[in-house]
Amino acid sequence: MKRTAFFISDGTGITAETLGQSLLAQFDTTSFTKLTRPYIDSVEKARAMVLQINSAAEKDGVRPIIFDTIVNQEIRDVLAQSEGFMIDIFSTFLAPLEQELCSHSSYSVGKSHSIGHNSNYMERIEAVNFALDNDDGARTHYYDKADLILVGVSRCGKTPTCLYMAMQYGIRAANYPLTEDDMERLQLPAALKKHKDKLFGLTIDPDRLTAIRNERKPNSRYASFAQCEFEVREVENLFRRENIAFINSTHFSVEEISAKILVEKGVERRLK
Amino acid sequence: MKRTAFFISDGTGITAETLGQSLLAQFDTTSFTKLTRPYIDSVEKARAMVLQINSAAEKDGVRPIIFDTIVNQEIRDVLAQSEGFMIDIFSTFLAPLEQELCSHSSYSVGKSHSIGHNSNYMERIEAVNFALDNDDGARTHYYDKADLILVGVSRCGKTPTCLYMAMQYGIRAANYPLTEDDMERLQLPAALKKHKDKLFGLTIDPDRLTAIRNERKPNSRYASFAQCEFEVREVENLFRRENIAFINSTHFSVEEISAKILVEKGVERRLK
Repeated sequence: MKRTAFFISDGTGITAETLGQSLLAQFDTTSFTKLTRPYIDSVEKARAMVLQINSAAEKDGVRPIIFDTIVNQEIRDVLAQSEGFMIDIFSTFLAPLEQELCSHSSYSVGKSHSIGHNSNYMERIEAVNFALDNDDGARTHYYDKADLILVGVSRCGKTPTCLYMAMQYGIRAANYPLTEDDMERLQLPAALKKHKDKLFGLTIDPDRLTAIRNERKPNSRYASFAQCEFEVREVENLFRRENIAFINSTHFSVEEISAKILVEKGVERRLK
Repeated sequence: MKRTAFFISDGTGITAETLGQSLLAQFDTTSFTKLTRPYIDSVEKARAMVLQINSAAEKDGVRPIIFDTIVNQEIRDVLAQSEGFMIDIFSTFLAPLEQELCSHSSYSVGKSHSIGHNSNYMERIEAVNFALDNDDGARTHYYDKADLILVGVSRCGKTPTCLYMAMQYGIRAANYPLTEDDMERLQLPAALKKHKDKLFGLTIDPDRLTAIRNERKPNSRYASFAQCEFEVREVENLFRRENIAFINSTHFSVEEISAKILVEKGVERRLK
């Protein structure tokens, strides 16, 4: 039985989606069709939503689960008339918070996601630009401005991790690919030695690395299992020898890798 | 009075942080010191957290607010002994969901964030690579593989938006800068004409654009207000003439712009 889950919001839907996904992840056995419906910010749109919800109920033969972060009471009243089972995120927590803070909620539509708003905009754009400009060892003379420098073999996940940390946290993260040359010298490149306290290592299972490299350069020596296995082994040895903390990215999401790096390095996020 | 808010999790902390930020954003008047504490996954770490919470309570002169998504009851019992005011996100919703789904939660530590796990890993990396390889009009012969093509003047926010859509939703988004040449010809470049259904326009207030360009090329003609104002006006005219939907990025976060584009273009996310 496949059941529909709706993440409904008057804003981007990120909060409803994030919490809904987290809660549903606790239920392994049931599988869900997940639908995010952002910007449901009028009674008209809510009425159209009700039709969608009821039609999913009929198709699935079971009522959908609705995770909503809608603030406006009138809009929520419309949704409540649907056949869905409502998990009403905001109304559950706003009342106790109002009491604790001795303050009334502004009940403002679409204000739910505060990360990334204007006060943070420039900081974030700067961080994304920093990650792009200092990607893949492209330049090393701005490392004094970096919060972090990720190191690892080519295609082990450095770029997405740097970009995620820039986007989500405003962290300025450079990355530098460790190549065979560096391995044979058995030492860190000079550009990295100066900033050893900012280094963090990424490693990856050779199988996964082979698959990723084959997408880029099929059947090359670069993508061969033997080469991948050699590089990973040498780089992990380098990390151990140089006392560089590292993490194997194979079994973690980009979110998890990023959060672990910040904890490990004690770097504070720049976006508030 | 500044009050401390803790976002505490046994995983990345993203769910606790996202929901906590959303709820606090509803209270304009109080200002908060926000601290995310991920990977609190043992009784020992929870005990150390209690000390931090109590010390914040003493320093602030008011008890901290705690948003937690910890699944393990033993760990939560330790946190509950702190002086903080707990908003217990998971325990609030898991019981009603268990009942509705006639299924027991797995109560698995660290499973809270399901987006971006392994099944999605390659899809997401591919999307990030696509955004990077097709950034800034670098190449146009892969536009048939694009889900979306963002167009706009240089530095109006195209790259961060494409990267965010790739990271968050697995969407393959290219972007193409509209330059003065295109404006004077008063028509779309041939590479874009073929894919007009995939185009979405970004625009920006000339003031903001001037500030952003001055960070890159201070005091250049490129960064002058007159030039920015001219380019923005011409591009908006082009969008209107060519019937290309567009959005002004000035007053929206990258999350908001991305969510609006997906709704407007009816593009479904690729990450599940």
